[in-house]
Amino acid sequence: MRPSQTTRRAVVKTLGAAPLLLGSAAFAAAGERKEGTTRKDRVHVGVIGVGARGTSLLETMLALGNVTVPALADIHAGRLEAAAALVDKASGSKPALYDDGPEAFRELVARPDLDAVIIATPWEWHTPMAVAAMKSGKFVGVEVPAALTIDECWELVRTSEATGVWCMMLENVCYFREMMQVLNMVRAGQFGELLNCAGGYNHDARASTFDSAGNFDASHWYTWHTLKRDGNLYPTHPVGPIAQCLNIDRGDRFEYLVSISSKARGLNKWVRDHHGAEHPNATRKFALGDVNTTIIRSASGATVTLTYDVQSPRPYDLAIRIQGTEGLYEMPRDAVHLEGRSAPDQWQPLGDYRGEFEHPLWRTLGAKAGEFGHSGSDYIMLHRFVECVATRSIPEQDVYDAATWSSILPLSERSVAMRGAPVEFSDFTGGRWRSRAPVPIIGG
Amino acid sequence: MRPSQTTRRAVVKTLGAAPLLLGSAAFAAAGERKEGTTRKDRVHVGVIGVGARGTSLLETMLALGNVTVPALADIHAGRLEAAAALVDKASGSKPALYDDGPEAFRELVARPDLDAVIIATPWEWHTPMAVAAMKSGKFVGVEVPAALTIDECWELVRTSEATGVWCMMLENVCYFREMMQVLNMVRAGQFGELLNCAGGYNHDARASTFDSAGNFDASHWYTWHTLKRDGNLYPTHPVGPIAQCLNIDRGDRFEYLVSISSKARGLNKWVRDHHGAEHPNATRKFALGDVNTTIIRSASGATVTLTYDVQSPRPYDLAIRIQGTEGLYEMPRDAVHLEGRSAPDQWQPLGDYRGEFEHPLWRTLGAKAGEFGHSGSDYIMLHRFVECVATRSIPEQDVYDAATWSSILPLSERSVAMRGAPVEFSDFTGGRWRSRAPVPIIGG
Repeated sequence: MRPSQTTRRAVVKTLGAAPLLLGSAAFAAAGERKEGTTRKDRVHVGVIGVGARGTSLLETMLALGNVTVPALADIHAGRLEAAAALVDKASGSKPALYDDGPEAFRELVARPDLDAVIIATPWEWHTPMAVAAMKSGKFVGVEVPAALTIDECWELVRTSEATGVWCMMLENVCYFREMMQVLNMVRAGQFGELLNCAGGYNHDARASTFDSAGNFDASHWYTWHTLKRDGNLYPTHPVGPIAQCLNIDRGDRFEYLVSISSKARGLNKWVRDHHGAEHPNATRKFALGDVNTTIIRSASGATVTLTYDVQSPRPYDLAIRIQGTEGLYEMPRDAVHLEGRSAPDQWQPLGDYRGEFEHPLWRTLGAKAGEFGHSGSDYIMLHRFVECVATRSIPEQDVYDAATWSSILPLSERSVAMRGAPVEFSDFTGGRWRSRAPVPIIGG
Repeated sequence: MRPSQTTRRAVVKTLGAAPLLLGSAAFAAAGERKEGTTRKDRVHVGVIGVGARGTSLLETMLALGNVTVPALADIHAGRLEAAAALVDKASGSKPALYDDGPEAFRELVARPDLDAVIIATPWEWHTPMAVAAMKSGKFVGVEVPAALTIDECWELVRTSEATGVWCMMLENVCYFREMMQVLNMVRAGQFGELLNCAGGYNHDARASTFDSAGNFDASHWYTWHTLKRDGNLYPTHPVGPIAQCLNIDRGDRFEYLVSISSKARGLNKWVRDHHGAEHPNATRKFALGDVNTTIIRSASGATVTLTYDVQSPRPYDLAIRIQGTEGLYEMPRDAVHLEGRSAPDQWQPLGDYRGEFEHPLWRTLGAKAGEFGHSGSDYIMLHRFVECVATRSIPEQDVYDAATWSSILPLSERSVAMRGAPVEFSDFTGGRWRSRAPVPIIGG
């Protein structure tokens, strides 16, 4: 273990004597004492999981120009080789590769030359890997959802608090150009006091749920969840930007939710239509209802309606709505209505307000970002991740956000199982939601 | 009491010996024996309530050409005179007017020359007036919602069953051109098996909630409900066409719902902004949250999400979605996606399918209907109402629909009061929902 880590651990241990009071001061202190500088010119990031998503994140990160990738881990040697070639091409040196089974990532996170790790593996590995990385003193960027159970959510929070290392869930919808403009408009009071928001992960994912023979295999790891679980299994995409607008865990908090699923027909039908009625998956019982709907209520009385809809034919649609006492935004319309500014009873293109409210990060990075994944949001997100690693500052998506947003998954399952009965959220901040500052307009 | 009524009562009494088994056979028998003919050339309809809505219905009904209006009732003499002038202009004879207080309608419904009555009064009068009219042997067309409490729902149902007279709630969204086309497409299997529907009454009604001085008065009768009630106070507009698509009480039934409201800010803010912070209504406590969201689950596992949103600045939007295993319709987009017909991941204008699926009633009546209220839906609806009166046949919106759709109002209030706990629907059909026939494509 290198000295800098020892130093950080010592700091954390001291601060740890005041449990649950750490928060940003502790993180900042840990970061500062570790490096003794305010900014690193280069950061060293390991990547765990280089399937489609991990490889895309890797490529985007390499394009930032100030990231060295000394190590990669995956259980598939072929994928690792392809990803290593990308690193080699970008930097002229091959990374160390860890492919010796599912636990090989532990060797990666223990490497003393890493500042941080990116985790893009199947869901059930997110928390164990993030926890191991934090315990090795590495800042964490973990794909969504960060956790699958309430226990895992608490484990993330307590590990981050105990180690003084932050964990950022890589919720890229928070970095969509339109959502960052909307956040800027929320902060400027354009919508008044927020009342109700909505959104969904509405995405026909049937084709990627099975292999070409209608079976599950290792590359269709997700399908196993649909066999066993019924709820909103993927809530963070819509709820991330909504929670930032509503100041969740930063002045307000999610208090309870109710959740109801429809019948499950889509996956059986898909297999029947493509592989015949005799295929075992044509009649296999899938737990996941085709359309899940969840309503959340916050302590201040704001409500959020979420859908999860991935087993039916439909165009992709996050369907985000942000509504307040003075106006609303609707993503499907790409439009707003603002009282006193828009014509009465009329929608107005969101673009009409871009000149006034474009987010500063998109003003400065938008041209470059647009070349990368998810319309540029991945670039902006990883820029922020790397920036926070380089400056030892807490990212705007911290471990409390990761826990609260991810917790909708198990809470919705509980509610569905009780015919929609209300289920309480945990307060992962230990009461500090009242005083934590809202997400600022970064770069503004 | 005229002989024909005695005859009908006698029939009902006989049939009444088989309680809850009446349904359409009883209605048909009663109707047939009353008149002894299959069709009346002219029908005689009284109108109770000739405010803005009642007057609009009256004008539309007079345009049908086969309706005589011998009597009108209202508590406002001035409104009655204006409405009577319309009748006079259309028919050359003035109707009898009943304006002697709120109970004067009882004289109107007792008139032996009426076949039916239209009721367009404040909400709390709908059930008492409908019940009185049925007890006098008059077919009923009642504005929405037909009832405000579960007891009132049962009273409507039991009165209709006991008298053998039908009660049609005048839910005009069921007659919207696009919703009738969508129903036709549902029946043709274009969306597959239905999974999830959504809709709302989303309408900035703040300006009509107060008078010009920010006070309640008799013409703003609705506002009193917002003081006392929190829930979905106006569910029938979106749920009507959805229930027809889902065959509710006709093969499926609503089983339970959960409902959550946001905080209430809009009405106080409206009064404050327009009449100053010192106005008593600027700080008066209104019970109704600004945005109510309700999820209903049916016995077959279909779900319905409803919103009620009338106290915020926003464009009018019923926001109806009809989604099945093979495609979906979304009203805000005026578009569908049909698997195998629409391009992958793309929306397609609903109008692309008009040639194939225009509803027969719109094909034949659409040109004329378009001259009348709510884009012609009122004309089609009243055509159906009058047609059913003339032929003594049960309308496609019967008393069970009126009860079930209206019952969402009190059920949502109960759920909101219990932080979203699930609340069971009553089965107003007494089990006959399993065998009742779906709404047909009329005129097809």
